[in-house]
Amino acid sequence: MKNKMITSRDIDFAQWYTDVVTAARLAAYSNVKGCVIFEPNGYAIWERIKEELDKMFKETGHQNVAMPLLIPENLMKKEGELINGFAPEVAWVTIGGQKTLEERLCIRPTSETLFSDYYSSVVKSYRDLPLKYNQWCSVMRWEKETRPFLRSREFFWQEGHTVHATKEEAEQETKDMLNIYKKFFEEYLAVPVIAGLKTEKEKFAGAEYTYTIEALMHNGVALQSGTSHYFGQKFSKAYDIKFLNQNNELEYCYQTSWGVSNRMIGAIIMVHGDDNGLILPPKIAPTQVIIVPIGNCDVVMDKCEEIYQLLKNNHISVKIDKSEKSPGFKFAEAEVNGIPVRIEVGLRDLENNCLTVVRRDTREKMSISLKENLLSYINHLLCEIQTNLYKTAKKRMEDLTFEAHNISEVESIMKNHPGFIKADWCGSEECELKMKEINGTKSRCILEHEPLIDGKCVVCGKTAKHLVVWGIQY
Amino acid sequence: MKNKMITSRDIDFAQWYTDVVTAARLAAYSNVKGCVIFEPNGYAIWERIKEELDKMFKETGHQNVAMPLLIPENLMKKEGELINGFAPEVAWVTIGGQKTLEERLCIRPTSETLFSDYYSSVVKSYRDLPLKYNQWCSVMRWEKETRPFLRSREFFWQEGHTVHATKEEAEQETKDMLNIYKKFFEEYLAVPVIAGLKTEKEKFAGAEYTYTIEALMHNGVALQSGTSHYFGQKFSKAYDIKFLNQNNELEYCYQTSWGVSNRMIGAIIMVHGDDNGLILPPKIAPTQVIIVPIGNCDVVMDKCEEIYQLLKNNHISVKIDKSEKSPGFKFAEAEVNGIPVRIEVGLRDLENNCLTVVRRDTREKMSISLKENLLSYINHLLCEIQTNLYKTAKKRMEDLTFEAHNISEVESIMKNHPGFIKADWCGSEECELKMKEINGTKSRCILEHEPLIDGKCVVCGKTAKHLVVWGIQY
Repeated sequence: MKNKMITSRDIDFAQWYTDVVTAARLAAYSNVKGCVIFEPNGYAIWERIKEELDKMFKETGHQNVAMPLLIPENLMKKEGELINGFAPEVAWVTIGGQKTLEERLCIRPTSETLFSDYYSSVVKSYRDLPLKYNQWCSVMRWEKETRPFLRSREFFWQEGHTVHATKEEAEQETKDMLNIYKKFFEEYLAVPVIAGLKTEKEKFAGAEYTYTIEALMHNGVALQSGTSHYFGQKFSKAYDIKFLNQNNELEYCYQTSWGVSNRMIGAIIMVHGDDNGLILPPKIAPTQVIIVPIGNCDVVMDKCEEIYQLLKNNHISVKIDKSEKSPGFKFAEAEVNGIPVRIEVGLRDLENNCLTVVRRDTREKMSISLKENLLSYINHLLCEIQTNLYKTAKKRMEDLTFEAHNISEVESIMKNHPGFIKADWCGSEECELKMKEINGTKSRCILEHEPLIDGKCVVCGKTAKHLVVWGIQY
Repeated sequence: MKNKMITSRDIDFAQWYTDVVTAARLAAYSNVKGCVIFEPNGYAIWERIKEELDKMFKETGHQNVAMPLLIPENLMKKEGELINGFAPEVAWVTIGGQKTLEERLCIRPTSETLFSDYYSSVVKSYRDLPLKYNQWCSVMRWEKETRPFLRSREFFWQEGHTVHATKEEAEQETKDMLNIYKKFFEEYLAVPVIAGLKTEKEKFAGAEYTYTIEALMHNGVALQSGTSHYFGQKFSKAYDIKFLNQNNELEYCYQTSWGVSNRMIGAIIMVHGDDNGLILPPKIAPTQVIIVPIGNCDVVMDKCEEIYQLLKNNHISVKIDKSEKSPGFKFAEAEVNGIPVRIEVGLRDLENNCLTVVRRDTREKMSISLKENLLSYINHLLCEIQTNLYKTAKKRMEDLTFEAHNISEVESIMKNHPGFIKADWCGSEECELKMKEINGTKSRCILEHEPLIDGKCVVCGKTAKHLVVWGIQY
């Protein structure tokens, strides 16, 4: 029995995605072109993500700040590569307080310029370093085609910006933050990722190099999920961020930046979801357990309340659905919304001294004796669901990761069923562009620590420099 | 001994304020005109405020959402009073993706229009109601003169927007939210407020009426601190938000909105701060206790660690200052930053089986025997500081609240020492404007439930309608 509001995933993946977003009330289309509205269910997931990631940032010595929304054109232009990269997609404020502005201001597409300008005024000595700041905010990029959570003009993210006294420390920070992202995706979102280095062509505008984590959606399409950039002294030279080092010499600082966005919600949908809607990993679900009373007699309602208190007092996020809808409707709604565990409390079950527990991932129905320790049962089940989601996604990613030895193999894989393709690469942009002709296949990342396959570029056959993961992207 | 970075509050209040903001590293001036940077200390206070208020909103059935940053001009204009109120101070985006836009978009100065547009598409039946949504975001108003936390082009706030099936329920919501604000100011920020109704002239553009809470700063100047608006059906008629009521008839909804902003940080500074810097109420302080080791021998550091663990494990927010600065420097820094309690751990004290504890509000130094129960001592002290801050502020507000019977009394009070003036008012805008000629004295709010003083308007002498609190405002 499948949800009638939702197109089957195997029939039309794009429509399935849109249907899940709508049916689970994660987001609504707004009358502001290219911008979506985060509805309560969608925003609650974003809040959970923020809560857990923020904890990880703070535990590693980062502090939150807030920079302005607007960037004056001159400030934006100080570092050449960044503005060249972003100029085609920024929005400009030209009128304020009914007057045409002398200098136009763009809505931040990213905030390296603002952080660098600030750092230039506060960093004086090595004793002030490092500064490891982060902000949670929205940014604006004037995209043409948009899709909720994956690509929209305004999107939510966090952007970390750090400044260090040494190259080594900044490079370590770049790696550390990539690892935090990887850990968060795998342990909290239950989404396995491949981590590696972006090619010159795909790196962030203005970075010396960019690390990325890449996830694979259910349909074999890749999603760039988080990036961590090492800037070296590029911005510190453009924005004049100097400090007195331990030898009392003026030196330019070393910088990094790193970010993940509300794309994570898209990844959750497209990695775990099914034809009945969303499936939320317990560690990130705003509601982990929903209790559905069948009927509303006192015995049933008292039992619901008892279970609610038991779980709530033990740090499980739980709700009772006391609305006037029918139990069947409530079950379907809980499924669409992806709530990991549903407990059904009915009079007949209670008379038999049991409860019905349903897990969302497998949709398995279990009858639980009232004599069992419900709390430990539920805790155990939540862990099991978390693990099962990760294992299933991991196996799928492995099944859809292929090796290719020549370009016709790449073509046949991508036309058969897309996925990740591992193949050697000579390092030239020409060969990257030839790969792109195959359904838009792009380099996802360079695997620095894995050996080459044949030692020859999959496109031109010349000596290979890197093992690269390729894929079609969102 | 006072902090040399800070101008004395009694010599130059405005400069004192700026000095505290800078010395406590709450905010920095940015190169974006009219916008400030929230530095870690300032943003951490905002995070604490959000955390506690958000809990209160959620406990009363509100859910968070996120609306777009930009509002198309036509959507903004649908309700006439709101756009008339905000038109002079909005910022317009006219270029996006290198093209001039067909329709310009303003950066939200407030989001009634976006919420109403959304509600019009999702509200169908009385069963969908109420919808009680809130968002935490920044908004933009093109102010000319700006001051950190009090008035800036971009500021942070929350805006709640609710939609109801009945007038009664919406009016109750308007009152309930005002009461939540009042409770939050008094119990968490330790800032006493006066609550009442705005006059027609001072109410929110588009509202049927506006409730406000008004606080009094140390210098006797009033700060409008939070507002709660009842819209009736004004927006639902302009944006066509209709629902089928229980009689199966189409009816326009009833709406409210309410907001508080980062002004709260300004209020904390100007109500509690002194010549040594910030004083944070314990219930909102990001760090409640700071432990300062004197020397760094093992005995001292072990004791610091032991106290740290004891407090941390009992939900007190605590830090050890392990930096390389001198103890004297650390004491001064903890004072400037307003940390409620400082524990000094030195070898000599330890040899005498004691610790030194300093409270920030009174700057009192206490020697505590190691035999005492430190945890309960500190918990008790934090409560006492919270209470003392509130009591002191409350007494000051009472001392600076005057009754006036005629306009010359108003003049003499405002020229002597400003404060709140209670005086009767006939209800005419003319009389309000005449009051404004006295150093900009404005009506703060109407006290609906208090009896008139003389029954005659303080300005014109005609029959009074309302008892009004007047003041000079930020």
